[in-house]
Amino acid sequence: MEKAERLVIALGGNALQSKDSGSTAEAQLSVVKKTCEHIAELSANGYEVAVVHGNGPQVGRILLASETAKEVVPAMPFDVCGAMSQGYIGYHIQQALRYALAKRNRNIPVVSLVTQVVVEAGDPAFADPSKPIGPFYSEEEAGALRREKGYVMKEDAGRGYRRVVPSPLPRRIVEIGQVRDLWDNTIVITCGGGGVPVIETARGELEGVAAVIDKDFAAELLAEQVDADVLMILTEVEKVAVNWGKPDQKDLSRMSLAEASRYVEEGHFAPGSMLPKVQAAMRFVRSNPSKKAIITSLDKAIDALAGKTGTAVTFA
Amino acid sequence: MEKAERLVIALGGNALQSKDSGSTAEAQLSVVKKTCEHIAELSANGYEVAVVHGNGPQVGRILLASETAKEVVPAMPFDVCGAMSQGYIGYHIQQALRYALAKRNRNIPVVSLVTQVVVEAGDPAFADPSKPIGPFYSEEEAGALRREKGYVMKEDAGRGYRRVVPSPLPRRIVEIGQVRDLWDNTIVITCGGGGVPVIETARGELEGVAAVIDKDFAAELLAEQVDADVLMILTEVEKVAVNWGKPDQKDLSRMSLAEASRYVEEGHFAPGSMLPKVQAAMRFVRSNPSKKAIITSLDKAIDALAGKTGTAVTFA
Repeated sequence: MEKAERLVIALGGNALQSKDSGSTAEAQLSVVKKTCEHIAELSANGYEVAVVHGNGPQVGRILLASETAKEVVPAMPFDVCGAMSQGYIGYHIQQALRYALAKRNRNIPVVSLVTQVVVEAGDPAFADPSKPIGPFYSEEEAGALRREKGYVMKEDAGRGYRRVVPSPLPRRIVEIGQVRDLWDNTIVITCGGGGVPVIETARGELEGVAAVIDKDFAAELLAEQVDADVLMILTEVEKVAVNWGKPDQKDLSRMSLAEASRYVEEGHFAPGSMLPKVQAAMRFVRSNPSKKAIITSLDKAIDALAGKTGTAVTFA
Repeated sequence: MEKAERLVIALGGNALQSKDSGSTAEAQLSVVKKTCEHIAELSANGYEVAVVHGNGPQVGRILLASETAKEVVPAMPFDVCGAMSQGYIGYHIQQALRYALAKRNRNIPVVSLVTQVVVEAGDPAFADPSKPIGPFYSEEEAGALRREKGYVMKEDAGRGYRRVVPSPLPRRIVEIGQVRDLWDNTIVITCGGGGVPVIETARGELEGVAAVIDKDFAAELLAEQVDADVLMILTEVEKVAVNWGKPDQKDLSRMSLAEASRYVEEGHFAPGSMLPKVQAAMRFVRSNPSKKAIITSLDKAIDALAGKTGTAVTFA
């Protein structure tokens, strides 16, 4: 029998909650259950998978609850909010995925690892915090947070001020060894929300930092380090497009690294949305030209692996 | 070389926060760092360890923040709060313990597993919810929560009303296989807060329930299932005592199962405090008469393992 193909799956926000059903934990669990049916189907089709999930809306709500209640309970630092979101989302995925697998007579264990990801203190992102997190504040409140806590606050499209944090690149997955140890007989959920960002001090201690690691870049690093065959980035659309939303929109079935570079330069992909997905895909195939990245939607994942749809990013 | 002794360590509340330094995450991390020095010392002395931690104050604060902010963000169900506390506390322990080990030239990985523990829907505890969680409410608020959410609310020593949940026995650790897979070369943090309590439905689906599993009982079950040599329950006191706080208080260096049973019957141990620790110790040595349980304080752990202090509970 041929060796099973290894997939690292990056789940986007729409895999964890729906715009229609609201943001209660119960509503999210029902979305996660549907998502897990698709992941279980991948497993039933013979693929070995690991799962990376985003956490933007969830960690935003944890932070918002924490900030709202701060007169009653000390507010949580952002790295701890991230770790909490890993517990929360990981719990739901491992509970739902285990059952979706069992229904298919696949008794494969599923477990979430609390995962730290090292970023470099010298990463240029630290000089230019750009990722908004948490609630909106008035100009006055924003000024107070600047002075009292040293937060970087930015005006956000006329809706008020928000704290912004850096989005540095992931350099090292601290718990990568345990992902590898478990891979052969377990579906591992790891690097949730891109991982809890930590820097390594001169004496080798890890310290949490207020930052957001892009989960697609974390999934890419994971895929490299577990020698995955395919990095599969799941999002809302079936295919990546150029001239998106314009009359001459063109959906792409495949992109070589050179083509992808050109499209990026031409500004076809939105920062914070499709751009990091395409960039993560490019990094992966650049790291090993025999590998493939796929960007598609959850319900098209199996067809995309069979080459029937989705956007495949390859070295040449 | 003799096979290393396997320990399951149950960390009590005082190992995670101090009464003096407050309840911010930063203050707790500094307590966790000290705790991890002791755990690392156990590892440096040749013991293989797994760590179970409590979560009472932490999950209480998560719930309090969530309830306080509920007009702004949907409140979180209690099982999800528990999973969040596993992420939060696990992150701190794995970060601090890794460094405490590295300082001792022990490059042993540490990882937290999000852990579900199955309880039985027919557990008698469900008929008598007794564990208070979350904030205090007025009589009027308590009545509204009873009617609207079906919560069981109890008056708490004149301080107001609190929600109470059942404290069922742990029956099965869902992720036990992954604890075993990792044990040989990794320090695993698992069953945090006693594990996220789940019941198994008739069709085999796991569902979170609002309950609190005693972390000492969860640690005991874990110790049985990984065939640990010693269940080590760490608390504030160096030894278990009979006639505690009375002029004839007697600290115990050891108890046989029969002696422990008699002391329990005589009411020497406080429910919700020393009683569950002694009961967990008794269960462990009853499960396998060659095993030993130790109840002591964190700073006496090594001496207690050498038989110099602490209270050893043995079968005979």
